[in-house]
Amino acid sequence: MTIYCAPVRDMLFTMRAVGGLDEVAALPGHEEVSDDLIEAIFEEAAKFAGDVLAPLNQIGDKVGCVCKDGAVTTPDGFKSAFAAFCENGWHAMPAAAHWGGQGLPQLVNTPVIEMWTASNLAFSLCQMLTIGAISAIEHHGSDAMKALYLPKMTSGEWTGTMNLTEPQAGSDLAAVRTKAVPEGDHYRITGTKIFITWGEHDVAENIVHLVLARLPDAPPGVKGISLFVAPKFLVNPDGSLGARNDLVCASLEHKLGIHASPTAVMAFGEKGGAIGYLVGEANRGLEYMFTMMNHARFSVGLEGVAIAERATQQAFRYALDRVQGRPIGCEAGKPIAYHPDVKRMLLDMKARVEALRAVAYFTAGRMDVAAKSPDPATAEKAQGLVDLLVPVVKGFSTESSVMIASTGIQVHGGMGYVEETGAAQHLRDARITPIYEGTTGIQANDFVGRKIARDGGAVAKLLIADLKTEVGDTATLAAALKILEAVVDWIAGAHKAHPERTAASAVAALNLAGIVIGACLLEKQARAAKAKLNGGDAAFLHGKIAVSSYFADHVLPQAGALAQAITQGHETINAFDPGAI
Amino acid sequence: MTIYCAPVRDMLFTMRAVGGLDEVAALPGHEEVSDDLIEAIFEEAAKFAGDVLAPLNQIGDKVGCVCKDGAVTTPDGFKSAFAAFCENGWHAMPAAAHWGGQGLPQLVNTPVIEMWTASNLAFSLCQMLTIGAISAIEHHGSDAMKALYLPKMTSGEWTGTMNLTEPQAGSDLAAVRTKAVPEGDHYRITGTKIFITWGEHDVAENIVHLVLARLPDAPPGVKGISLFVAPKFLVNPDGSLGARNDLVCASLEHKLGIHASPTAVMAFGEKGGAIGYLVGEANRGLEYMFTMMNHARFSVGLEGVAIAERATQQAFRYALDRVQGRPIGCEAGKPIAYHPDVKRMLLDMKARVEALRAVAYFTAGRMDVAAKSPDPATAEKAQGLVDLLVPVVKGFSTESSVMIASTGIQVHGGMGYVEETGAAQHLRDARITPIYEGTTGIQANDFVGRKIARDGGAVAKLLIADLKTEVGDTATLAAALKILEAVVDWIAGAHKAHPERTAASAVAALNLAGIVIGACLLEKQARAAKAKLNGGDAAFLHGKIAVSSYFADHVLPQAGALAQAITQGHETINAFDPGAI
Repeated sequence: MTIYCAPVRDMLFTMRAVGGLDEVAALPGHEEVSDDLIEAIFEEAAKFAGDVLAPLNQIGDKVGCVCKDGAVTTPDGFKSAFAAFCENGWHAMPAAAHWGGQGLPQLVNTPVIEMWTASNLAFSLCQMLTIGAISAIEHHGSDAMKALYLPKMTSGEWTGTMNLTEPQAGSDLAAVRTKAVPEGDHYRITGTKIFITWGEHDVAENIVHLVLARLPDAPPGVKGISLFVAPKFLVNPDGSLGARNDLVCASLEHKLGIHASPTAVMAFGEKGGAIGYLVGEANRGLEYMFTMMNHARFSVGLEGVAIAERATQQAFRYALDRVQGRPIGCEAGKPIAYHPDVKRMLLDMKARVEALRAVAYFTAGRMDVAAKSPDPATAEKAQGLVDLLVPVVKGFSTESSVMIASTGIQVHGGMGYVEETGAAQHLRDARITPIYEGTTGIQANDFVGRKIARDGGAVAKLLIADLKTEVGDTATLAAALKILEAVVDWIAGAHKAHPERTAASAVAALNLAGIVIGACLLEKQARAAKAKLNGGDAAFLHGKIAVSSYFADHVLPQAGALAQAITQGHETINAFDPGAI
Repeated sequence: MTIYCAPVRDMLFTMRAVGGLDEVAALPGHEEVSDDLIEAIFEEAAKFAGDVLAPLNQIGDKVGCVCKDGAVTTPDGFKSAFAAFCENGWHAMPAAAHWGGQGLPQLVNTPVIEMWTASNLAFSLCQMLTIGAISAIEHHGSDAMKALYLPKMTSGEWTGTMNLTEPQAGSDLAAVRTKAVPEGDHYRITGTKIFITWGEHDVAENIVHLVLARLPDAPPGVKGISLFVAPKFLVNPDGSLGARNDLVCASLEHKLGIHASPTAVMAFGEKGGAIGYLVGEANRGLEYMFTMMNHARFSVGLEGVAIAERATQQAFRYALDRVQGRPIGCEAGKPIAYHPDVKRMLLDMKARVEALRAVAYFTAGRMDVAAKSPDPATAEKAQGLVDLLVPVVKGFSTESSVMIASTGIQVHGGMGYVEETGAAQHLRDARITPIYEGTTGIQANDFVGRKIARDGGAVAKLLIADLKTEVGDTATLAAALKILEAVVDWIAGAHKAHPERTAASAVAALNLAGIVIGACLLEKQARAAKAKLNGGDAAFLHGKIAVSSYFADHVLPQAGALAQAITQGHETINAFDPGAI
């Protein structure tokens, strides 16, 4: 069994030092947010994550989910854990207060969700998808639909899914073929959806599927896709469950990881058509999905932070226990953590995960300001930063998490390759995160195209200016910010006339942004740590200073290399013909 | 089923352009080596790899090996494939002619072994371990021992293993506890060995275990370890099989990958002591193991090249088939390979694998010159280069293979995460290679300590001078070679007084060397390709030019960043206390 201790101290420190907790707590509607409240919530959440969810992580991986005749059985312990999760209010917590949630700031919800994800990624996906479905109905459904579905989805009595992908329609949803034919107040849906996370399971009494489909008279492409609600069991007007709908789990995928998260092939309408209800207006389905995109992508980015944290904890624990050889300059019996190269790997993992957390929490804080600031200019600026940073959080955190989990295996040596150790699971689990909810390539194209080129780099430069003001008196950071600024200019200049150039350089640009912003936020934290050194907790604070130095010495120097590849390397890529080699 | 087509064209090109094939073929004892012979061998080997071994790769992964009451069953098809492998002479091929092998140059054996490894890594490990055991007996065993064991081990009737690791003795073999007590002409061995590759199986009639153990009067530490031969079935003087020896497979590990390669826990002497025969002199076991180290580490480095090639082929095949969205500037229906970011990933994979192959084949050619050159100075220089480059081939190729296999998954999108696709297996298989046969950290310490600091960087500078002469008129390469040279000087200067500094920077130094040498050898190949462009095969030759440009634009710029981390980043690492955070 592998252990997870929620890094509450670092979470709180990051919320305060870079997340803008004071500013968020001062927003109208968040008057109840206090240090005491947050610490009480985190303490309880940490307990639930460590005591209930973490112990199920490895067994869930080993056993996985089983599908038989359309019924899916989750691994032993998942059903009761989900019941306890709902009973204790954790399922409802991130939702709005009027549907039964806590209505807390995103900045406060974020560390709690990080805990669920780190302790048990497969388990956490059920809530993650349900939150997304709630959000879609909340923003675009009718009042009657909201009243019928949202209270039970918030409580966790019912869970939610997103049915987007089809075999021929993955990254390109324009190719969706699933059909919806009107029939009275509802529609009949037929088609096959794949990769449906928690599409079928045994942990809740109903599953509310959100489904993208085409009406008979719909225009082709993305402008002809509508969004439907199709529950597993039809819902009577009084909220009680009715007949079984004509939709079924045809099979589950055998995946590299997240084995305890059932990834379903969903067959709609094998007996004449699943009953579905239109959400909002016809042909606006894709637009509705996009309104949830920021949140879903942020959540997956947070998964990257979480798995990286879990892998890092496990590597530290092993390396501080295992004795093998005498580390240079140490007495005999010192564990392998003191070999310089092992120390390097541990510090690398720690520095990267804390950089990822800093960028994610900074973004979470801006989400709150964007949503609640009474000053329109402040809110607008915050929203701009959120839009800019969400693809960075998604792409950079998830790609980094794969690398960090891989380093975690390396720290364990041969034992890391043995599944019982648990280190390998983190790599297998992490590997989906740069793929689902939009691959890194898609995040990067969004970043350079919609988020930088569209406004000529204006928002990106606002952020760079803020960071310059805050930490730009450090020479290396000032130089790195200059590099990032030059790349922003290059993107803004090149994108319209040569979209193939910025597309070829997009992932490198996204990584560059992640590295430079991460380095600045770590430095900001290091300064906060230095200012507090007299107040105790010196070991933790020195750790904050160490990761900032490490990141500046070992990761930040890549900025120049990336900028060179971005501005000069696109030609080679675009000239290459992969079909003729 | 995933496909493997041996890249014979690139193998031959690399052997000629950077491997020094002409020089090797002119060595005494290699008179028979001709283009015709090589091409005939490669053609047949490619057929066997593609038709027999590759189709077993995925089923072997899925089924794995099973251990019951000490007997191990390999997946269906492995036994007959191994029989065909031996029958066709492939098992014997890399061995010396007087034991039944072909006695061909390492440069010619290398691509063939790459084919076995790429088509089926798990399968190939059996031969790899047997070659190592043959080499140990050949170099250090008595004539009687050689005559008794080597012909059958060469033919594959018997296979070999290396029993080094114990639970408390992994990277640190000084901690070996297995005991050997003299009894007449033999010894009685008791102890437990772990991570024994192909330690028990059903593909051959006998298994010859090489075992590290301590004599009762042995001094402590590494100077008290002796090497023994302990066959599964005792061998009668006439070579026939006798009684079952007292050694048994206690269990198999459940690993992240290479499932078809049985990784055994071996219990020696549960019924009083396994009979073993001393190899060479007492207490020199570790020294004997080290004589095989270069070859074994080179072989694992080659595994990195091979898996990377396999993953790259699979990614190209998928991306050239899958249609999703319309790539920028292309007509509709063009596959995803033409999206700039997918093109980038494919070119990245291809460039890296060809760089790795170039460094490996260059090293293989130097092994032949070192072994056979009639000129002592030439042989000595070649041996110096081999010693310098083996840790680079091992560490850089294997670390790169993990990254390349991970990119291969990314190219597949969601399908890459589904095990049936086969892309994920390459990542799982690749992940062991930076660990076994000495972790990357151990390779890197060998590289900076024994291979650079010990001779003050003399051999490294010889190589740098050669590369400067060959490609130093390219400004970027000249600059990169200068950076590498400065790092060599820094290592030579810092190592004695501050071994903790070079240890902290060792992996970065190894990566730097891999990148710079790889870039130079790719440029050398690109020049050879340009010179041949009029002779046809233009698509292939343009591919060689493209990978060299890509590597120079996208990978080589990291050299400066690594040098900065190496020379300035050790302080942060060494100051960090992983136990106090």
